[in-house]
Amino acid sequence: MSLDHALEEARAGRDAAEADLFEELRIPSVSTLPERRADVRRNCEWLDARFRALGFRTSITDVEAGGHPVLQADWTGAGDAPSLTIYGHYDVQPPDPVDEWTTPPFEPTLRDGMVYARGASDNKGNHMAALKAAEHALAAGGPPVNLRFLLEGEEEITGPSLPRYIRENASRLGTDHVLVWDGGFSPDGRPELVTGLRGILYVELEAKGPAVDLHSGGFGGNAPNPLNTLARILGELKGRDGRVTIPAFYDGIRMPDAGEMADWDRSDAFAETIRGLTGAAVLEGEGGYSAAERAWARPTLDVNGFVGGFTGEGKKTVIPARGSAKVSMRLVPGQDAMRILDSLREYVGELTTPGVSVEVRLLGAAPPVLAGADHVGATALASAFEAAFGRPAARLRTGGSIPVAIDFQEALGAPMMISGLAQPGAGAHSPNEHFSLDHYHRGIEALVRLMWSLGR
Amino acid sequence: MSLDHALEEARAGRDAAEADLFEELRIPSVSTLPERRADVRRNCEWLDARFRALGFRTSITDVEAGGHPVLQADWTGAGDAPSLTIYGHYDVQPPDPVDEWTTPPFEPTLRDGMVYARGASDNKGNHMAALKAAEHALAAGGPPVNLRFLLEGEEEITGPSLPRYIRENASRLGTDHVLVWDGGFSPDGRPELVTGLRGILYVELEAKGPAVDLHSGGFGGNAPNPLNTLARILGELKGRDGRVTIPAFYDGIRMPDAGEMADWDRSDAFAETIRGLTGAAVLEGEGGYSAAERAWARPTLDVNGFVGGFTGEGKKTVIPARGSAKVSMRLVPGQDAMRILDSLREYVGELTTPGVSVEVRLLGAAPPVLAGADHVGATALASAFEAAFGRPAARLRTGGSIPVAIDFQEALGAPMMISGLAQPGAGAHSPNEHFSLDHYHRGIEALVRLMWSLGR
Repeated sequence: MSLDHALEEARAGRDAAEADLFEELRIPSVSTLPERRADVRRNCEWLDARFRALGFRTSITDVEAGGHPVLQADWTGAGDAPSLTIYGHYDVQPPDPVDEWTTPPFEPTLRDGMVYARGASDNKGNHMAALKAAEHALAAGGPPVNLRFLLEGEEEITGPSLPRYIRENASRLGTDHVLVWDGGFSPDGRPELVTGLRGILYVELEAKGPAVDLHSGGFGGNAPNPLNTLARILGELKGRDGRVTIPAFYDGIRMPDAGEMADWDRSDAFAETIRGLTGAAVLEGEGGYSAAERAWARPTLDVNGFVGGFTGEGKKTVIPARGSAKVSMRLVPGQDAMRILDSLREYVGELTTPGVSVEVRLLGAAPPVLAGADHVGATALASAFEAAFGRPAARLRTGGSIPVAIDFQEALGAPMMISGLAQPGAGAHSPNEHFSLDHYHRGIEALVRLMWSLGR
Repeated sequence: MSLDHALEEARAGRDAAEADLFEELRIPSVSTLPERRADVRRNCEWLDARFRALGFRTSITDVEAGGHPVLQADWTGAGDAPSLTIYGHYDVQPPDPVDEWTTPPFEPTLRDGMVYARGASDNKGNHMAALKAAEHALAAGGPPVNLRFLLEGEEEITGPSLPRYIRENASRLGTDHVLVWDGGFSPDGRPELVTGLRGILYVELEAKGPAVDLHSGGFGGNAPNPLNTLARILGELKGRDGRVTIPAFYDGIRMPDAGEMADWDRSDAFAETIRGLTGAAVLEGEGGYSAAERAWARPTLDVNGFVGGFTGEGKKTVIPARGSAKVSMRLVPGQDAMRILDSLREYVGELTTPGVSVEVRLLGAAPPVLAGADHVGATALASAFEAAFGRPAARLRTGGSIPVAIDFQEALGAPMMISGLAQPGAGAHSPNEHFSLDHYHRGIEALVRLMWSLGR
C-alpha cells in the first residue's frame, strides 16, 4: 500500500492506458440517437467488465424504461477508511456535423500529442484516467480509501436515470467525498476546482401557421409565416445588449462574492483568451461584466438550432406550415428553471402573431449548483493537481452544467469536488473533439495522489 | 378547318388526353436538384417527340452551360394568318416534404376528379392542355393561326436560358399574340386574365460567428451566436404590422387604378376564401389593404426556409458556427429589385451584431409586369373561357411571378395574355399538388376556341 509504488505502476503503464482509452473511444455511445442505443449499452458493459477484472463489485441497473443504464462499481478493500465516490458518464454527444471532422469521430487518431475522437475529453478521457488510477492503486496493494464509481449513460441528454438512482438509493450510497469528474482546465490553462456550475433550461419552440406549405407568390402578403414569426420571437428573447428579455429572468440572482472570485481573471487578456478559443472576430455578451463573469456567474440564452421550410440548394418559393428552434438558457444561483419556463411560455404567447401558434416544449432542466472549494477533498485535489501538473489549481466556476451534481449534493450531502482533465479548447460537443495525452497521464497521477491524500 | 370538328376531336379524345398528362407527370423534372438533371432533359425530349409527331418543326437548345434546354416548336401551316406564341415550362418544384404526400409525387393518382402529382397544376396540366388543343386543331385540318410553343426547364429556378434565348432570337421570334400559360383561376374560382404579375427578389442570408461549433456551457454569454443574430435580423425585416422595414422598400410603388380593380373582390368574404385555402387560423398582412390588394398589388417579404445548429431529435448544447436563411420578396410595379437588394445589404449590415458577419447572396430576381387586358387576344381568351367554363373571366392581377414575362414583353412587344387552368388551392409548390380534370378538358376546349377566335 505505497503511493510511490502506485505512481511507478502508472508511469510504467502508459502505453496500456492509451490503448484502453482508444478502445473505449471506438464505441459510438451517442445517447440521444435511438440507432446508437445498443452501442451505449455496449459501452456500459465494456466498463463493467474492466471494473470486475480489477476486483470491483459491479451492477448495471436499468432505472427508466427506454433509458440508458447506471453502472455502479465498488471496491471496499480499505475497510473502515474513508470512501470516495467518482462520477462520470460513458455517453457522448452526436458527432455532427460529421463532414467537419478531419478524421472519423469514432476512429481515435493521435496527432501532436492529442487524441481526436468524440468523447475524448467529454467524458471518456476523464473516467478512463480514474479507472486507470484505481488499477494502478490496486496493483500497488490497494488505495487507502474505499472507491465507488457511478457512471451514467444519460449525461448528454440530461436523462433521469442516475438522479433517480441516487435519490432512491441514497441510504446505501453514503460516502465521505464526491468527485464529479466531468470537467476540464480553465480557459487560461490552470487545473480547476469548480466552486459553482451553471444550470440549464433547454426548450424547443415549434411554430405553426398555415395548414400546409403554400406558394409564396399566391399567398405572400396574406398568409401567416411561422418562420418570420419564430425568427422575430427568437430575436426578441435576447437584446443586442446581451440581456435576456424574458420577464423576471434575472430575478433573485446571487453574484459570487469577492472571496469566491479571488482566482478569477477578470481582465481583457482573459477575454482575449476566450475569443481566441471561439475563433470569432469579437465576443458578444452582457454589458458591464467581464468575460469570466459572463461565462461563470451570469445567465444567458442561446439558440442551439433552428430549421424550417426549404433548406436545400437553390430556391423554393414556399411559405412553410411550420418551423422549430432549440433554445437553451444557462442559469446561475438564485434562478429557478421552472419559474423561468412559465414566464417564457407566457412571453412567447405575447410575442407571437395572431396567425401563428407557438408551442414551448421542455426538453430538459438542471439547477445551478454551488460546491464550495475549501473542504478537505478540495484541498487534497488541489495539492494532487499541483504535484502532478506543477501548477496551482484555481478556484473558479464553470459555465456548463452537470445536471447530476444537484442530486449528489441534495441526496448524499457529502462535499463535492468538481473538476476534470480536458485541456482548454478541447472541442467538447464540436467537431474534432480532442484530449491531451499529457493531461491524461498527469491526471492519472493526480488521481492516485488524491486517493492517498484522502486516505491519510 | 372547322372549329366544331376540332371540339368533337377534343371531346372524343379525353381518355387519351388524360393518359398523356399522366405520362408526363411521371417524369420527375425537378430543375433545382442536380440529381434530377437527366430527368429534366428527358421531359424536354418527351415533349419534343410529341410535337414532332404532330408535324411541328422543333429545336432543343442548350443556352447556358449547366442550364436546362429551351424547347421551341413551330407549326406554320396557317400561312399568312396571325401567329400565337404559347409559353410554358416543363420543370417542377422539389416534392419535399415528401412524407406529407398522400400518394407519391411522381406517381399521378386520380381522386375525386383530381390528379395528384408534382407539376399537375404547375405547369404540366397547363401546357399539356395547349399541346392537346393543337393536336385536336390539327386533326380537324389545322387551326387558322400559326402556332409556336416556347417551353423552358428553368422556371422554378428563375434560370437565365429562356430569357436569353428570347432576347437573342427576338428578330426571328416575332409574333402577334403571346399566351403566358402558367397560371390558374382566381382564388374565388373565376377564370382569370392577369393584368399584372408581382416580381421577385430571392436572396440567401448566411451568418457566421465562431470559427467552430462551441459548447454553449463554456462559451454561452461570450461567444457571438449566429443563430440569435440571424433570427433577430429576419425578425426585423418585417414588422408585426406586416410592413417591410428595408429602407426605401416602398419607394415608387404605383397602385392600380379603380378601373383595373373593377373585377377585384376586396370584401372580407374574399379574405375568408383566402384564409380557407391557407388553413391558417387568421390571415396576417399589411394594415389598410384588402386581402386582394395584399395579394396582387402590395409587396411583401417571406422567410422561405432557415437552418442552422442542431436540428435532430433531443438536445445538443451547441453554439453553431453558422446558420442560413432563404428570404424572398414579392415586388410590385414601381419597385426596383436591384435597388432593394442594395438597400437590404446595407440594412443587414446595420442589423447584425459585432461578432457575426452576414452575407446576402442574390439567388434570383424578376421585375413586376403589367400586361393590360383589353387587347384583342385578351378579349378572345375571355370569350373562349366563358364558352368553355360557363363563367365570365375576371381581370385580376396575380401574386406570383412569371420571370420570363418581362422578356416576352420587352423583346417581342406583342400583347400578352397571362392565364392558366389551375383551380384554386391546387397546391402548387406544396405537398399533394393536384389538378382538376374538368379544368383540363374544358381548358383544352377553351384553347381550341381561342385559336379559331384569333384566326378570324
